[in-house]
Amino acid sequence: MSACWDGYTVSVLTQIKEAPAATPIDRLLNATADDMAKVNALILSRADSHVEMVPELARYLIESGGKRLRPMLTVAAAQLFANGNGSAINFAAAVEFMHNATLLHDDVVDESDMRRGKPAARMVWGNKASILVGDFLLGQAFMMMVETRDIDSLGVLSAASAVMAEGEVFQLAKTGDLTTSPEDYAAVIRAKTAVLFEAACEVGAMAGGADEAGRKALAQYGLELGNAFQLVDDALDYGGQAGTLGKNTGDDLREGKMTLPIILALAEGTEVERDTIAKALGDPEATVEQVADVVAILTRLETLPRTLAKAHEHARAAQQALEVLPVSDMRALLSDVVEFSVLRAY
Amino acid sequence: MSACWDGYTVSVLTQIKEAPAATPIDRLLNATADDMAKVNALILSRADSHVEMVPELARYLIESGGKRLRPMLTVAAAQLFANGNGSAINFAAAVEFMHNATLLHDDVVDESDMRRGKPAARMVWGNKASILVGDFLLGQAFMMMVETRDIDSLGVLSAASAVMAEGEVFQLAKTGDLTTSPEDYAAVIRAKTAVLFEAACEVGAMAGGADEAGRKALAQYGLELGNAFQLVDDALDYGGQAGTLGKNTGDDLREGKMTLPIILALAEGTEVERDTIAKALGDPEATVEQVADVVAILTRLETLPRTLAKAHEHARAAQQALEVLPVSDMRALLSDVVEFSVLRAY
Repeated sequence: MSACWDGYTVSVLTQIKEAPAATPIDRLLNATADDMAKVNALILSRADSHVEMVPELARYLIESGGKRLRPMLTVAAAQLFANGNGSAINFAAAVEFMHNATLLHDDVVDESDMRRGKPAARMVWGNKASILVGDFLLGQAFMMMVETRDIDSLGVLSAASAVMAEGEVFQLAKTGDLTTSPEDYAAVIRAKTAVLFEAACEVGAMAGGADEAGRKALAQYGLELGNAFQLVDDALDYGGQAGTLGKNTGDDLREGKMTLPIILALAEGTEVERDTIAKALGDPEATVEQVADVVAILTRLETLPRTLAKAHEHARAAQQALEVLPVSDMRALLSDVVEFSVLRAY
Repeated sequence: MSACWDGYTVSVLTQIKEAPAATPIDRLLNATADDMAKVNALILSRADSHVEMVPELARYLIESGGKRLRPMLTVAAAQLFANGNGSAINFAAAVEFMHNATLLHDDVVDESDMRRGKPAARMVWGNKASILVGDFLLGQAFMMMVETRDIDSLGVLSAASAVMAEGEVFQLAKTGDLTTSPEDYAAVIRAKTAVLFEAACEVGAMAGGADEAGRKALAQYGLELGNAFQLVDDALDYGGQAGTLGKNTGDDLREGKMTLPIILALAEGTEVERDTIAKALGDPEATVEQVADVVAILTRLETLPRTLAKAHEHARAAQQALEVLPVSDMRALLSDVVEFSVLRAY
C-alpha cells in the first residue's frame, strides 16, 4: 500500500523540515482573525442564560481550547468568494454550537472522563446537565441560523444535524461488532464527522455568495477534509504512523469502537491475533499490556500506515476539489490546511 | 382560595355529568382527522432510517399511544383561519418530533423506567440510543420545517427548542432545592411545557394564514393551555384533587421535583411536616407510607386544590385569548378542549 502515498508523504515531510514558523493553521487563524473575533463574541453571548448552569457548563467546554477549526473553515470559505452577505458569522457560531452539542452528548454516550485535556463537562456537572445543555446549544444554533433568514443554508445544517445523530446511532449499534466492514466504517466517519465539515464549508461558501460550482467545490472539500481528519484521529488513537504508545493510546479499543486499523486487523490477522484484539475490544479495564499487544498486531499488519494512506487519499481529493476555483491566497491556504491536518499523525 | 374557582368547577363538573358521548378531545380528533392522517404518515416516514435502531426506537415511542395533542393543536389552529398554505402538516409533525425528542432525553435525565404505560425506550435500547435518537428526531424536525421555507415559523420553533432545554436545566438545578419559589416553578413549567404548546398553536395559526392578532391569540391560547396542562399533571402526580393514592403517586416526589403542591406545603407546613416532606423528597426508595404521609400533608394544607385553582386560572385565560377571534365551531371546540384538559384531575 505504501507505494501509493510515499511520494506525498515525503513531500509533506520535507515541507515540515523546511517549514517556516507559521503552520497553515496559524496562517488560517491569522487570515480569519477579524471574522473569528466576531464569531467568538457571538458564541459567548449566545451561550449565556439566566439559568446559571447553562453558561457555566457551556463556557467550560467552549473556552477549553478547542481549535475552532469548523467555524474558521466557514468564515474562510466565505472569504474565498466576493459577494459576502455577512451571514457567515452566524453560521460559523452555529456550526461551533452544533459541534459542541455533539461533544457533550458523545461524552455521555462514550462515558468519556476527559475532553481537551480537562475533565469532561459530565464529570463536573453530570450527565443530565450535559444532555440538556447540549440540547440548549442546538436550539441556540438554529436560532442564529434563523436570524440570517437564509433557508437554504438552514437546510444544509439541519440535514447535517440529522445525519450526524444517525451516524452516532450507527456507530453505537456497531460497537464491539467484529463483523463491521470497512464500508460500515466509511459510513460512520462520513456521518459523524465529515458531514459537519462539509456543511461548515458549504454554508460558508453560500454566505460568501458562491455560485453553484463554488458551493459544490467547498462542500466536497469539507467532506473529504472531514474524512481525512477522522481517519487520522483514529490512527492517532493507536499512536499514529509509528504506533507510539502514549497516555490515551487505546481509548477507542477500550470503548469497543470499530475503527479502520482494527477492522483491517480483524480481517487479516491470525486466529490468535483476532482473539487478542477481541478480548481487549470494548473492555474498559483492558491493561496497557493488552493495548501494546494489539498495537503490535496493527504494526505487523501495517494497518496504521494503511489507515493514514486512506486519509491521504481523502486529503488529496479535498485539495483537488478546490482546483475548479480561481487561484487565490485563500485557496492556497485551504489547500495547505489539508496537509497540516494529516501531518498530525507523524 | 377555593372561592375563586368553585363556580367554574361546579359548571364543568355539571357538564361532565350531563356529558354526551363525545369528549372535546374526541371531537378534536374528529375535526382534525384528515390532516392528522397526513401528519401521522409524515411522522412514520421521517422516523425511518437505514440505521435499524433509529426507526425501531423512534416508532416504539411514537406509536405508544400518546394523544398527539400538540400536533392536533397545530392543525386545528391552521383550520381556524381561512388562508392555509399547506405547511401545517409539516409543522405539526415537527412539533411532535420535538416533543418526542424531549421525552427521550427527559426519561434519561429523570431515570424514568416507564413511559405511556410501557417500559421507557431507555429500558429497551439504553440511555445512549435514547440520547442519540432524540438528537436525530430533532434534526428531522428542523428538516421538515425547512421544507416549508417559512423562516418565521422556524424562528418560533427554534426559540421554543432552546427555551425548553433551558427550562429543563433550570428544573434540574432546582431538583430537591427546598428554597424553590412559586415563581421559579412558574418559570420551569412555562419553559418546559407551555412554550411548546404556545409554539404549536402559533405556527399552526401562521400556517393557516392568521393575521398578527390571530397569531398572538393562538400563541397566548397555547401558552395558557400548556401552563394549565402542566399544573394538572403536577397535581395528578399526587392523586389529583382528592389526593387519591395510585400506582405512580409520588413519582415527582421521589425524583425530587419541586412542583407547586410541594412548594406551597414547604412554605406553610409545620416544622414536622417540612421534615416529613424533605426526607421523602428526592429519595427514589421513599416508601408508599412516606408518600401517603406527604399526600396527607398536601391534603391538610389544600395544596392540591390550590394547584388546580391555578390551572383553572390559566385555563380561563386560554379561553379568553380566543375571544378576539370570530365565533366558529373550531373556536368553540378549542375552548372546550381547555376544559377537558383540566377535568383530568377530578
